Amino acid sequence: DKTVDIGVSLEKLQSLADAAHQKFKDDTDGKNADYIPELAKIPSELFGVCIMTVNGDVITVGDVDYSFAIESVSKPFTLSMLLRDDGYEAVLEKIGVEPTGLPFNSVAAVELHKSAVNPLVNAGAMASVSMVDADSPKARFEKILSYFEEFADDDLTVIDSIYESEAATNWHNKGIAWLLDSYGKLYADPDEVCDVYTKQCSIGVTARQLATMGATLANGGQNPKSGKRLLPTDQVPKLLAIMLSCGFYDGSGQWACEAGLPSKTGVGGGIVSVVPGRFAIVGFSPPLDEHGNSVRAQNAIKYIAEELELSLFNGRN
Amino acid sequence: DKTVDIGVSLEKLQSLADAAHQKFKDDTDGKNADYIPELAKIPSELFGVCIMTVNGDVITVGDVDYSFAIESVSKPFTLSMLLRDDGYEAVLEKIGVEPTGLPFNSVAAVELHKSAVNPLVNAGAMASVSMVDADSPKARFEKILSYFEEFADDDLTVIDSIYESEAATNWHNKGIAWLLDSYGKLYADPDEVCDVYTKQCSIGVTARQLATMGATLANGGQNPKSGKRLLPTDQVPKLLAIMLSCGFYDGSGQWACEAGLPSKTGVGGGIVSVVPGRFAIVGFSPPLDEHGNSVRAQNAIKYIAEELELSLFNGRN
Amino acid sequence: DKTVDIGVSLEKLQSLADAAHQKFKDDTDGKNADYIPELAKIPSELFGVCIMTVNGDVITVGDVDYSFAIESVSKPFTLSMLLRDDGYEAVLEKIGVEPTGLPFNSVAAVELHKSAVNPLVNAGAMASVSMVDADSPKARFEKILSYFEEFADDDLTVIDSIYESEAATNWHNKGIAWLLDSYGKLYADPDEVCDVYTKQCSIGVTARQLATMGATLANGGQNPKSGKRLLPTDQVPKLLAIMLSCGFYDGSGQWACEAGLPSKTGVGGGIVSVVPGRFAIVGFSPPLDEHGNSVRAQNAIKYIAEELELSLFNGRN
Amino acid sequence: DKTVDIGVSLEKLQSLADAAHQKFKDDTDGKNADYIPELAKIPSELFGVCIMTVNGDVITVGDVDYSFAIESVSKPFTLSMLLRDDGYEAVLEKIGVEPTGLPFNSVAAVELHKSAVNPLVNAGAMASVSMVDADSPKARFEKILSYFEEFADDDLTVIDSIYESEAATNWHNKGIAWLLDSYGKLYADPDEVCDVYTKQCSIGVTARQLATMGATLANGGQNPKSGKRLLPTDQVPKLLAIMLSCGFYDGSGQWACEAGLPSKTGVGGGIVSVVPGRFAIVGFSPPLDEHGNSVRAQNAIKYIAEELELSLFNGRN
Repeated sequence: DKTVDIGVSLEKLQSLADAAHQKFKDDTDGKNADYIPELAKIPSELFGVCIMTVNGDVITVGDVDYSFAIESVSKPFTLSMLLRDDGYEAVLEKIGVEPTGLPFNSVAAVELHKSAVNPLVNAGAMASVSMVDADSPKARFEKILSYFEEFADDDLTVIDSIYESEAATNWHNKGIAWLLDSYGKLYADPDEVCDVYTKQCSIGVTARQLATMGATLANGGQNPKSGKRLLPTDQVPKLLAIMLSCGFYDGSGQWACEAGLPSKTGVGGGIVSVVPGRFAIVGFSPPLDEHGNSVRAQNAIKYIAEELELSLFNGRN
Repeated sequence: DKTVDIGVSLEKLQSLADAAHQKFKDDTDGKNADYIPELAKIPSELFGVCIMTVNGDVITVGDVDYSFAIESVSKPFTLSMLLRDDGYEAVLEKIGVEPTGLPFNSVAAVELHKSAVNPLVNAGAMASVSMVDADSPKARFEKILSYFEEFADDDLTVIDSIYESEAATNWHNKGIAWLLDSYGKLYADPDEVCDVYTKQCSIGVTARQLATMGATLANGGQNPKSGKRLLPTDQVPKLLAIMLSCGFYDGSGQWACEAGLPSKTGVGGGIVSVVPGRFAIVGFSPPLDEHGNSVRAQNAIKYIAEELELSLFNGRN
Repeated sequence: DKTVDIGVSLEKLQSLADAAHQKFKDDTDGKNADYIPELAKIPSELFGVCIMTVNGDVITVGDVDYSFAIESVSKPFTLSMLLRDDGYEAVLEKIGVEPTGLPFNSVAAVELHKSAVNPLVNAGAMASVSMVDADSPKARFEKILSYFEEFADDDLTVIDSIYESEAATNWHNKGIAWLLDSYGKLYADPDEVCDVYTKQCSIGVTARQLATMGATLANGGQNPKSGKRLLPTDQVPKLLAIMLSCGFYDGSGQWACEAGLPSKTGVGGGIVSVVPGRFAIVGFSPPLDEHGNSVRAQNAIKYIAEELELSLFNGRN
Repeated sequence: DKTVDIGVSLEKLQSLADAAHQKFKDDTDGKNADYIPELAKIPSELFGVCIMTVNGDVITVGDVDYSFAIESVSKPFTLSMLLRDDGYEAVLEKIGVEPTGLPFNSVAAVELHKSAVNPLVNAGAMASVSMVDADSPKARFEKILSYFEEFADDDLTVIDSIYESEAATNWHNKGIAWLLDSYGKLYADPDEVCDVYTKQCSIGVTARQLATMGATLANGGQNPKSGKRLLPTDQVPKLLAIMLSCGFYDGSGQWACEAGLPSKTGVGGGIVSVVPGRFAIVGFSPPLDEHGNSVRAQNAIKYIAEELELSLFNGRN
């Protein structure tokens, strides 16, 4: 394999990652998600930044090997399987690709559109899970887990304590799943789908693993470490477009202005941003802002994006 | 000035524009906007495609010199003036930058957010007009017109028959303007703002002129023909991000997937798409699909975008 | 017991019931509910009118002994048990008493208010079921059934074919139940509540039985046949007020204007209207209008109400 | 004229009014409306209760001759003119009669239904004003004022300071008026209608005058003092039904349960309740609860209604 020119040296990337970590590590704004005790317990000072290039080079600083719950950052990767197996048209018809302008768990949006609206809100993420072709809930989850492992090029496991806590309180999601089902827009048993989705959200990833997952998207769907193709190249821009439009829920427009990168955020404190053709940046730190996005992770990614003018809305440089 | 490498030859661009025109000119799907008789009267067979590069080169095919009402395609250019004069933070605070997930004229969205939500729906476009610094409605409109003329590097005039028809039926917009005012999110007299906005929508542009306007955005805010800077470079990505997130109303997510270009559509039949650092593509043809977007213009732009893999969500090529 | 003066002779009531039946029996407007095949199968020509006075006198015409699914007409009777056991304040706090202005199965209303809104929409009816004090789903249902039997002064049974069909398609209700649960506004296990509610809706009643149930409310909570008190007198006006405000869903305002009587309608084709202190009128006929209310039953009740000026909004006569 | 038996002695009514006044006069809960300074300035300790019977007898206690802004209590009286001149069917079709389940000034409700929804929210009250048949705004207002004067059997005047303040801040209503117009559901010029409506709300009434207005409705549409018929008898129940369903906005259901009387409330501190065939009760006191209803007036009316079991949902007594 020849090395791709990613437009910046690894030294520069490392120094920017270091600077971002230094700049924001003492920022104590935000607080851990607390809707389940397990998330509240995670040390708030954890903070890692990891960049993985399309050449497989890796830049790290801070807590990049702490395994946190992937939560909503899982959504684009399940969507990726659908784009691979069913294609964009199926996703468009069966789920939708429009931002909702409403919170991630809005049922009014579901009722209004009689569909999940897009794959990156809870409704659409469960619709995505339900579209995964499998014979049983167990097979469904294992297919997802194994696909995620190929993205991470590493073993991944469910964080049981998180899964058990969330499974005991995922009533709102159950409600959404049954509603979708009543509109004919869930494609497997609602209770099972909700459970598999909850388990998917409880998968533990490190910033390092998540960076590999993101770098696979940056690399046109081919894992830069293993070389395995996980998504056809022509589906990647569609996945990234959905991430840009919907990845930060009702803050997606602002993130598009300020970072300009397809990204996905999760209440576990992780954020992945993709610079197509170049690299992925992952930030991880538990304390969240009022919208549920990691304060330090956002700041670190925005800092690096601004310094390198990474916004897709810049002209080619 | 040195010539920028736009990554494709002018010959190739011309042949793609020709092919797109040939491919879609006989497609009679859609119909003219008919909410005012003046728009319904425009010949449906009109169809032009124009590409203007950041070097000022121009590619044309078909009816590129027919002057049509700019309508909603005007919105990003007024927004441009605010980004120049007030900056992004002011736009974020006074208007907002989030897609609504609802139709372009939704008042429920305005009530829910107690703001205009984003500058590319009617509410936000009027909020934009109201933020233009001027002593009188006349001065306000002339400032806008003159700014648009600098974008087009040409004289522009209001199409009086369109303006008069729309001014006699813009009740919904008046309602929105007064509501915004009641939330403290309109910054000048509602009746006057609504009138200036109506006039702004009635400005006539040709595909050629609109391509120059778009090329100015592709060129980082500097008009490629006149060389005049109309927007600071650092504000351009923000404007383009808003166009990508919100430029096709409740079809913006789908357009981001399928074309992947910051764009703005109008019921006059025009669409402008910006390929940052390279060129702008304009399509014009009156018949609209059920969402109010020109059928032929959409198809032509998507065709060229796909052939050249222009989507911003492709890696650098 | 002394006989109450109900302000009209039984002969007059009989002749009005006969006239109403005659007048509307050949009206073939509307069609049976068809969301489950069992409801679609019921003979459309069935039509009965039954009036039961607070003295226990009964007026009948037509198919008053055909047992049909009580469906939503069950809702006020379960509410009655709550008013008896928990009181109005508990209902106000735990469910709500406001009309929604939205369809009977709206989840947007539930999300907006984070509660069931009122006991006569599906959300509130399930919240009502969940408030019934019982140790098991079986006990819960039997308590409801037995209370309904005391209202009807007769044995009642579930129509199994209806129950089975509805149980296989009550996904939307399951969605609502889980949502309510997520807002802390369902007071028992959602799946079980939804099942008991479905069974409650499948209880078979005849027009004659339903008229006894209604007459118990007209009689201040005391069954005019058995003499048993089923609801304290002071809670009856509250129940009837809720029926007037919410009993016809998003057509409640119009029904209040045109009939002026507390009423409840169901997709099984039954409607019960209460004339406090005097009698209850029941109409039954399967074909429904576009709002889901029996065409013939509405017309018959309105006819009798107009002839006798029964609207509560008339002055005392 | 023979005297109607109102089912209670005047002595009893007086003693209940006195008791209600005594019981609540020291309750300092709530605060004056403050969206315009003029309303905030009115002495908070003002408190009057007035009952006018269908025989023209009057019971008073406290500040019954202080002239306060009628505000939303005006709405049913303008509606009365429409019911007289155009009839119920016209009101049903052109305005609607359903409770919205949403706040009095909701535009989402208007957008959802593409109509004013009911005559007692702001949208519907402006639609009502627009339906008044008149050649000019001046004539329109004078027709309304003169009709109100016939209801009050007294001269009425606009409180100029209130009118001027409200006219300078009625932007939200202007927005609603233009929206209605855009849906074809306003029947005169929006700006003029909004102004006439604002003036109508600024008409000063005393509790004594308002009680006469209410007693005219209690008396089947005939003024008990002047003997003039202001509304055909058969339209009165429809007006009262709308007042019961919609008169307390999104608290109408609760008021129906707790007072059980057709009523209308206004931010000026007045509430009128109608006991059909018997009398009207007016309470007036400026401090409002969080829903915008006079605390003391509500309590006084509920107290009297409970003591005399006036709820329409009681059986005849």
